[in-house]
Amino acid sequence: MSTIDRDAPVAIHTQISDRIRLKIASGEWPPHYRLKSEPELAQELGVSRGTLRRALSTLIEEGLLRQVRGRGTFVTSTIIEPAIAQKLSTLTEDFARQGVVTETAVIACELMDPPKPVAALLEAGVGSRVLRLVRVRSTEQGPVALLHNYVRADIAPGIEQQDFGVQSLFGVLEQTYRLKIASARRTFSAEPASDEVSAALGLPEGAPVQYLQQVTYLDDDRPVEYSDVWIHSGRLQVTSLLSRR
Amino acid sequence: MSTIDRDAPVAIHTQISDRIRLKIASGEWPPHYRLKSEPELAQELGVSRGTLRRALSTLIEEGLLRQVRGRGTFVTSTIIEPAIAQKLSTLTEDFARQGVVTETAVIACELMDPPKPVAALLEAGVGSRVLRLVRVRSTEQGPVALLHNYVRADIAPGIEQQDFGVQSLFGVLEQTYRLKIASARRTFSAEPASDEVSAALGLPEGAPVQYLQQVTYLDDDRPVEYSDVWIHSGRLQVTSLLSRR
Repeated sequence: MSTIDRDAPVAIHTQISDRIRLKIASGEWPPHYRLKSEPELAQELGVSRGTLRRALSTLIEEGLLRQVRGRGTFVTSTIIEPAIAQKLSTLTEDFARQGVVTETAVIACELMDPPKPVAALLEAGVGSRVLRLVRVRSTEQGPVALLHNYVRADIAPGIEQQDFGVQSLFGVLEQTYRLKIASARRTFSAEPASDEVSAALGLPEGAPVQYLQQVTYLDDDRPVEYSDVWIHSGRLQVTSLLSRR
Repeated sequence: MSTIDRDAPVAIHTQISDRIRLKIASGEWPPHYRLKSEPELAQELGVSRGTLRRALSTLIEEGLLRQVRGRGTFVTSTIIEPAIAQKLSTLTEDFARQGVVTETAVIACELMDPPKPVAALLEAGVGSRVLRLVRVRSTEQGPVALLHNYVRADIAPGIEQQDFGVQSLFGVLEQTYRLKIASARRTFSAEPASDEVSAALGLPEGAPVQYLQQVTYLDDDRPVEYSDVWIHSGRLQVTSLLSRR
């Protein structure tokens, strides 16, 4: 970084935070960039660690930087990043963990005869019914995901009477119905936004959306839930922290 | 399923395999659908288990069904499904595990000054160089992925002389350079195909592609590699098998 102007009418810590803000805005310091250690950075800038810390505090308060104990200071991602590729958590759970405030609009919550491919994947016998749940999840930025869930009603009788505007689907299955959700198979692909998806997420028709398809299994190996989820990639990115061994 | 015509000039096992083929083609039995158990299915069709098995064998040979020991018989997915969202494996490793034959075309393999955001994420100091590796992976169906990798040359000196048409990047890092790859951060999003991506993957410009961004870390916590990967979702779907606990 260029040197600090000690004769400028602007406080030194403000000069430093301005420069860092610029580096973040220009993309030179991209999301997840780890800053040098405080002693290194302070030396490079020729300022005291106290002055540097004051500059960093400002940027942390603004949400541009975040500190991770034992790891250092990082540039914040401006995009919400649920870890749903890595763990069998749900969007609701990941949002809650990250302190993201969301709203859920329930578009449909009704019993129906399952569409044939859904019936097959849920191993639903002839005449069996499923809950069809259609929801839109939104954050402050606007809608981030459109969810279509199908749940076997024989496994969770009466589930259509639950209020999914306030409760999560996994929450209801695990707490109200005492079901043991064990595993899921999720696939990820890029799809063009259909009429319905573009209207729900506020995207142009045909725009790329992140599509997830999932089948969820109980601990006795019965499939309980099938879902199609479409995600607005500009507002939410699926993240995995992976280990080699 | 409708009953078998015992007076037809077509063998009973052929009638059965024809019907199953139709169910798969129509989507009534979608990819990953688990067939009923052999005794159930034989009873439903009114045939012996031997006849049923002969029909299933035909479909397994055709690649439409696959049997998993202790789990049953499933409809095969027609799309390759690497588990790279779930594990820190690479496309090469997942292809090899699934017996998928791939070809790699090396488009570029050269040392360069890292672009600024890459330098930041790789914590590459001033004046340090990176390997820029550009590859296209193809299967029988055509190109499935375009990969841009950037590797810190100070950690793997001479890496630009390796032949990445035959060797994998992780293979070279782990075996030739004896580096311990420990973890990675991957994000998944849907993007419109750029000029370069559409040309490499044979997609129209602006068509949705699955985009992965990754930073890979060594066991001493140094970032060693950054990559951008664009995947043809019609030919390859990223899959995760996830556990709740």
